[in-house]
Amino acid sequence: MSAFTLESIRAAQARIQGRVHRTPVLTSGRLDELAGASLFFKCENLQKTGAFKARGALNAVLSLTDAEAAKGVVTHSSGNHAAALAWAAKARNIGVTVVMPRTASAFKVASVERYGGRVVFCEPNHKSREETAARIGAETGARMVHPYNDLAVMAGQATAALELLDEVPDLDAVVCPVGGGGLLAGTAVVAKSLRPGIKVYAGEPEGAADASQSLASGHRTPVASPASIADGLLAFVGDLTFPEIQRHVDGIVTVSDAEIVAAARLLLEVLKVAVEPSGAVSYAAVAGGKLDLAARRVGIILSGGNVDLERAPWAPPGRV
Amino acid sequence: MSAFTLESIRAAQARIQGRVHRTPVLTSGRLDELAGASLFFKCENLQKTGAFKARGALNAVLSLTDAEAAKGVVTHSSGNHAAALAWAAKARNIGVTVVMPRTASAFKVASVERYGGRVVFCEPNHKSREETAARIGAETGARMVHPYNDLAVMAGQATAALELLDEVPDLDAVVCPVGGGGLLAGTAVVAKSLRPGIKVYAGEPEGAADASQSLASGHRTPVASPASIADGLLAFVGDLTFPEIQRHVDGIVTVSDAEIVAAARLLLEVLKVAVEPSGAVSYAAVAGGKLDLAARRVGIILSGGNVDLERAPWAPPGRV
Repeated sequence: MSAFTLESIRAAQARIQGRVHRTPVLTSGRLDELAGASLFFKCENLQKTGAFKARGALNAVLSLTDAEAAKGVVTHSSGNHAAALAWAAKARNIGVTVVMPRTASAFKVASVERYGGRVVFCEPNHKSREETAARIGAETGARMVHPYNDLAVMAGQATAALELLDEVPDLDAVVCPVGGGGLLAGTAVVAKSLRPGIKVYAGEPEGAADASQSLASGHRTPVASPASIADGLLAFVGDLTFPEIQRHVDGIVTVSDAEIVAAARLLLEVLKVAVEPSGAVSYAAVAGGKLDLAARRVGIILSGGNVDLERAPWAPPGRV
Repeated sequence: MSAFTLESIRAAQARIQGRVHRTPVLTSGRLDELAGASLFFKCENLQKTGAFKARGALNAVLSLTDAEAAKGVVTHSSGNHAAALAWAAKARNIGVTVVMPRTASAFKVASVERYGGRVVFCEPNHKSREETAARIGAETGARMVHPYNDLAVMAGQATAALELLDEVPDLDAVVCPVGGGGLLAGTAVVAKSLRPGIKVYAGEPEGAADASQSLASGHRTPVASPASIADGLLAFVGDLTFPEIQRHVDGIVTVSDAEIVAAARLLLEVLKVAVEPSGAVSYAAVAGGKLDLAARRVGIILSGGNVDLERAPWAPPGRV
């Protein structure tokens, strides 16, 4: 795979079809009223492993030659990609090592181990993660599968938008969260290829607004110490994902942690689905009224639903 | 409509189609492993108004003649049928009065008022509910739409099973909750008509086990003071629903409140959907291992998802 195009995304879809869920698109009269628009929620929180990450990880694993696959895969991630890669490796019955910071929660470590992944702990900083993963790759020959800055991963992740537009072809806009940019890049390429007039927007946490800053400055601009309750969106936008975002995305709006929590709570109460903070950022961007969506048909990707119930963001204030 | 048959149920489906959601059927590898069976969750918690009750209420309202409809509808209910009838009446633009006990929670009253329903309070006992609703019916000419003991309501409610078996035709068993018996009667008639060899089971709260007792005794046998966290299942099985249950249902198992809460919590954590205690009783019956389902394909109706988040049953023990 040498380029990131609709063709590579369709090839990914053919590769992973039947092994990932075709997730439902839900609607709610009450949420439409609140937004003053018709909302179509693509529920990737109901995806295998609880997030769209399963699509990208599986496409990457199934794209390996047998010789490559025999040596296994490795990644560094403390979030949904870690569990997704462990799950994908199990589906092909190959080895998988996940480098996680030693501060990772027991909940997240358990998600990887549930699928048979080997966890190797590192120091909780980017340098240690990269170095540990590189060392394991060098020692074992395992292929690095980056959480987002990888064309096979991006193509797999983009299949969520392909399904959404297949089911609801006449969308005026589509909104997704942005962290490292894999989902956003893929969504943008799919949406603009299939429907050139569509608007593509993203929501981003205020405390990790590197993608917004990068769009504004015209080059990849990191945030010094990203922090947000949306812990899946703290990554720095990649050198493969950013050019696609720059080319295709119409706007990125930032949302506060309070807006994210309120959005997750409303999705649980009204749409009846569990969405993790990172997954609710797209709806938070819409609910916050920061996008001009009046009376339009808007696709919203709810990207993940892995919530540690012991720390559920929607618990009433008095009970946290 | 004079009989409760597959034909009357198909007619109901034609009547309400496009106005209710065709709810998704979700699966989970992890829940399959836990159960040792293949589970297909029919998500009526994602239905309009948050419960399968929308189907029955809408069928009843759309079955009225224009002259009947002009006088409006009335019901007594403190639960999902109340909101469903308000919603259905609004869909036909007719008047609706809901008799609710003065002890009903603000959460439930709000659900009715959201759809424009008029709420009339009564004393919190069965006699007062019946009398108040009858008086309003006599005064206004409004048609009583009973929550379950009504052939049009039963036929509408049965359409959930029709969709489930259309989507997953080769089920070996189907499980639903039982309260007044509308959903169970409808599910049983659909399942046995379409697939005679299928097993039909129900879960019932231990503290409101009138349907189990009635099956055992061979006649409708009430429980003196029904009590359960599954507050939608406290009703006494009806004289229209019980004969269908007696004829078609293979077994009813009882579950404790602790089992119900554990089931709701697991559904939220793994399936990522909000299910209210009453709605989780079907899965609690399966998770409890009380049914012989080994290696079989089992449909499970999750009947409702209206949870007051201030009193969420899945909150960790330390935070309740």
